This record gives sequence, C-alpha cells and structure tokens, in this order.
Amino acid sequence: MSSRRKFIQTTALSVAAAGVGSLKGLAATTLDAEKKKEKVALKEGIAGYTFKNFSVDQSIAMMKRTKVDALSIKDFHLPLDSTPEKIKEVMEKFRSNGITVYAAGVIYMKTEQEVERAFNYAKTAGLDLIVGVPTVELLPFTEKQVKNHNIRIAIHNHGPEDKLYPSPANVMSNIKGLDNRIGLCLDIGHSLRAGTDPVKAALDYAPRLFDLHIKDLVSSAKDAKPTELGRGVMDFYGLSKALRKIHYAGRYSIEFEMDMNDPLPGIAESFGYMRGVAESLA
Amino acid sequence: MSSRRKFIQTTALSVAAAGVGSLKGLAATTLDAEKKKEKVALKEGIAGYTFKNFSVDQSIAMMKRTKVDALSIKDFHLPLDSTPEKIKEVMEKFRSNGITVYAAGVIYMKTEQEVERAFNYAKTAGLDLIVGVPTVELLPFTEKQVKNHNIRIAIHNHGPEDKLYPSPANVMSNIKGLDNRIGLCLDIGHSLRAGTDPVKAALDYAPRLFDLHIKDLVSSAKDAKPTELGRGVMDFYGLSKALRKIHYAGRYSIEFEMDMNDPLPGIAESFGYMRGVAESLA
Repeated sequence: MSSRRKFIQTTALSVAAAGVGSLKGLAATTLDAEKKKEKVALKEGIAGYTFKNFSVDQSIAMMKRTKVDALSIKDFHLPLDSTPEKIKEVMEKFRSNGITVYAAGVIYMKTEQEVERAFNYAKTAGLDLIVGVPTVELLPFTEKQVKNHNIRIAIHNHGPEDKLYPSPANVMSNIKGLDNRIGLCLDIGHSLRAGTDPVKAALDYAPRLFDLHIKDLVSSAKDAKPTELGRGVMDFYGLSKALRKIHYAGRYSIEFEMDMNDPLPGIAESFGYMRGVAESLA
Repeated sequence: MSSRRKFIQTTALSVAAAGVGSLKGLAATTLDAEKKKEKVALKEGIAGYTFKNFSVDQSIAMMKRTKVDALSIKDFHLPLDSTPEKIKEVMEKFRSNGITVYAAGVIYMKTEQEVERAFNYAKTAGLDLIVGVPTVELLPFTEKQVKNHNIRIAIHNHGPEDKLYPSPANVMSNIKGLDNRIGLCLDIGHSLRAGTDPVKAALDYAPRLFDLHIKDLVSSAKDAKPTELGRGVMDFYGLSKALRKIHYAGRYSIEFEMDMNDPLPGIAESFGYMRGVAESLA
C-alpha cells in the first residue's frame, strides 16, 4: 500500500501548504486511519493456480490491475525442470513488475527425486517457502531437505475426496514431531468441504500455519462449488479476526477457481471484499 | 442475496438429512451470520453514469456479473424525450433481468419545460425518485412538480468547480423550507473535494438524504482523481457506520468514473470492497 501512503502524504503536505483549515482536519483523520490499518493489515497474495489458462505476462497484467503484489508461483509458469537461467529470468520478470514471488506451489511429490527437485528449484529461485504435497512416506526425506536447505514447506490440504491429506488435521497428525519448518498451507475451501471449520483450524494450528489458500464456496457441502469471496458461506470476518489473534505472519493467497478463462472481474471482486473486511479490523 | 439464502437453506437441509453432526454446527453458525447480515445490510445500487460508453445490454451484463441489482438510470440509456412505449420497453428490459431501476438521473434542468419533462419521464417509468440538478431559480417550480406527482427529487452536489451546488451544504441551504420530498443525493467524492467530510454530511443531512453516489479518490485535493473503492482516502467504514446510525433507507450507488472503456474489474473490486466493509458491521 505504499502508493496509498504516498497519496496521503502528498495530500497532507499540499493541504498544509495551502493552509486550508477544514481540509487539514480531514487529512489528519485519514492519516490516523491509515496508521491503524497498516498495523493490522494482513499481507495479500494470489495462488498461481488462479492463472492456469494465462501466460506469465497476462498474469502480471491481471495482478497489476488488481494491485496484488505477491504470488505463489505454479509450475505452468515456471516448469520444475527449468534451467537456472530460466528460473532467474522468470523471477526477474515478476520482480521488475513489482511482484514478490513468495512461494512455489502447489508442488506434488511422489518420489525422493521429485522432493529434491522441488527444493533445488526453490533454492535457485531464492524462495524460502514451498507449498507442497509430498506423500506421507516421503515426509522423513522431506524433513532432511528442509534441514539441508533451510527452506520451509507448507503442506496443502485437499478436500474429502483426497487420499493423502483430506483435511488440515491429516496434515498436522502426519507432521507431528517433524522439524518445525514443516507446516500447513490451510486451504479454507477444501477444509470446509471436509467438515473442518477453517477459523478453528487457523486457531488450532497457528504455530505451523505458513500459508493460506483463500476462497469462498456456495455451501459447505462436500461437492460445493466456488464463488466470488463474500458471496458464499465462508466467514471471512471471523477468519481475519482469528489471523490477527494468532499474529499470523504469512500471506493469505486468494485461489480463484471459477471463470478460469475470464477470472479478472472475480479476482477483483474477491480482493476488494477481503480489503473491505480488513478495513473494518483497522 | 436471495440466492445466498437459498444456498444456505439447501445446505442446512442436506446436512440435516445426512445427519452429519460436525457439519450441522457449521451450518448453524453460517445461518446465524446470515441473519445478522441481513439486518444491517445497506442496499446497493449503481449510478448509470458508470456505463457511459456501454449499451443497455452491455450494462445489464456487467451488473449481472457483479451481482448488482439496482440502477439509477442515466439518459444515454433512456433519452429524456423517449416515447412512453420506449420508456416501458427499457424499464421492462431491466426488470426482466432482475434489475430494479430505483431512480433516474442525474438529470440537469435549466427551464420549467425541462423540469416538467423530467417529472413526466419519471412518472411514465414508474419511478418515485429523480436525482437531479434544477437551477436554484427553478426550485419553487420543482417543488410544485414534486407535490403534483408525489415524486421525490434528490439534488446532487458537484464539486468546488460547480457554480450551482458545489457542496452538500449548498444544496441544503437552498432547499431549506421546501417540501420535505426535496432532498440530497450526496456525492461523497465531490463532497470531499469541496472540503466537506462526507461522513459528517451524511449525519448532518440525514432527514433529507435520499441517495448516495459512492466513489473513492486518491486524495482530498480539489482536483483529486478517482480510484477503485478502498484504494483511496475515503473512510467507507466510518460512512457505513454513519448510514446505519441514521437508519439510512435509500441505496448507496457506486459511481465508477475511471477506466470508463473497461470498467468491469474496477466495478467488481469496488462492490467487493463495500460488501467486505458491510460484512464487518454484521
């Protein structure tokens, strides 16, 4: 929100210069509100899967339009077997457009080679967080990689139809006792479909909550369809309050999984909604 | 939000039928949240000027996409000299698409003939609210039309550059003592540019506050540019609280005045933002 700060600073200065009393009062109020907001703001992001049908350039354009400055990069934008040169080139493209790639994922891993590849990929990209799904059997090997590279991994829960991690509890029970750099990427939609209140999950699993996939659903049924944030049943106000309470330091990444050939209006509405909820917590 | 209610009712029923205890709890929480929300929800709308460069059909498509169901119709969608048949045809087109035309405007009136025409147009369209700008000299004649037709008029403030009504206070001082069906359409952007805190204006002018044009600005300077709701300096949380406090019964209409050849993402983000703010007041 640095451009907002800039606007307000500019306003405050120009108002002071003009010496207009009534506007001074307004600007002061606005500055106070802004200070409060920054203190509690959750950091935004977007999950790369949202851009399944779009190139890196198209995705950057959509992120700039909606003022989203952080991405969890998905492999269709940067294949896992990319050369170091290619990895650096794509990362630099996001960086030069003002976008922080804060994680890579979701990366599925079924062999030790795939685990090693994911960690090397993250290391070359300069990332300290993988959002991944190693099989349960691979968790001890994954832990070794975490220790070797000092790169964290957030294991992503899927929904009730998933064999590996159908709910956040399945992730947590499997990583119990492992290095505390192995944690959870809580997908709130899959969690709700699995019958787990995502607000409760965020509170319960706070110390290991590294990343969030944020979405809304038209119901809490197992096969519930996604909808724009705020139109469905998800309690975003409760979730935002919970994240504040646990001093969540990660990002919340909106993963928008409808209108996938024309997602921009839905992405925009969804970020608008989350920003409106955040406003109220300021 | 009837489709939301439907979703939730369906969920509650299917959950009850399945007898799944944990989901029952979730559904109950969601129902409670929904009830609270309805109690305090402000009614949405959109100001027709937003669609300056789009046909009626294109505008309807954008409203449906963003789930906005009320419009203050602008003359480029329905010229003021339209035949009664044309007026009925266009009104029916909105109605059959689930959209309530709740007002006509902004309509500028510089002669008695133009005032008469505006009231006849509203009457033929079945509207009980005009958002308009009659000259100060025409206010007594406008009052007669209000009494004749029992149609209210909300006079719209422009900004500091306007000769007629540069701030809400100029509207209010000029309508003082006139029929109480003559009131204010508070344009919060123009108000802020004129140095009047819109939250204070909403509170001060509550009994005569009939309509709202909602927008955000990058600063409170006289020539400040518009921006998507939530990105600028406007205090929407404070405004929403004020509107609740005064039991505002009208609509808040977003008037989106940037990217006018491609406004959909900005409209979507702006409604998302207002809905997020409203969520927090539930």
